[in-house]
Amino acid sequence: MTIPASPDWLDDVKWNADGLVAAIAQEVETNDVLMLAWMDREALAQTFMRGEAVYWSRSRKQLWHKGDTSGHFQKVHDIRLDCDGDAILLKVEQVGGVACHTGRHSCFYRKLDDAQWVETDHLHADPA
Amino acid sequence: MTIPASPDWLDDVKWNADGLVAAIAQEVETNDVLMLAWMDREALAQTFMRGEAVYWSRSRKQLWHKGDTSGHFQKVHDIRLDCDGDAILLKVEQVGGVACHTGRHSCFYRKLDDAQWVETDHLHADPA
Repeated sequence: MTIPASPDWLDDVKWNADGLVAAIAQEVETNDVLMLAWMDREALAQTFMRGEAVYWSRSRKQLWHKGDTSGHFQKVHDIRLDCDGDAILLKVEQVGGVACHTGRHSCFYRKLDDAQWVETDHLHADPA
Repeated sequence: MTIPASPDWLDDVKWNADGLVAAIAQEVETNDVLMLAWMDREALAQTFMRGEAVYWSRSRKQLWHKGDTSGHFQKVHDIRLDCDGDAILLKVEQVGGVACHTGRHSCFYRKLDDAQWVETDHLHADPA
């Protein structure tokens, strides 16, 4: 797959010092916020071309086509950019209903309650 | 206002090299994603204590109690933490219905359409 030669819309993104932009994935059906990840320029270009979310894994330092190992792909309906150009919002269809590597629907399953983080969401899938 | 002495729940957050964590604000009524901003430890502690969103302004390098100048405060209903501990999700009531400094409901008002960012949301308030 080739990346289009420096299209303007990629230049409108304000990449940080590491060449990354924060990307929020929101489920199109429920509007639930599923996760926050990071994209480099190629990840965003590939997300656009594939129609599926591709992130940059900061821990593995490589492109991460979400779902490649889990099958939990994110089909992209919308790509949005914020006013400052330094954050992306993806509206996605979450295949399998599970975005989190722990097997939960959303990565934001811990809620502050009485000054403690309490788990609110049960497992939807075996994380293994 | 004083900050509690290093409570455990603040230690559970994985602050980045700049001592910051990304914070998504989501409208509790509509589930619309309003904005992405950053918090330092004191901003998150103050958000908890006030029940209103307090961020760290990276451009002004100071705490930013959102709404102090605009009146568009964010009343916090929920504070959530993601699986990796490096992203916060606030469920907020957006006073005035306007989160963006441009006068729009959400900062994510530009949508990628035919390889261009197209404005989708009209002004709700005079940005001045």
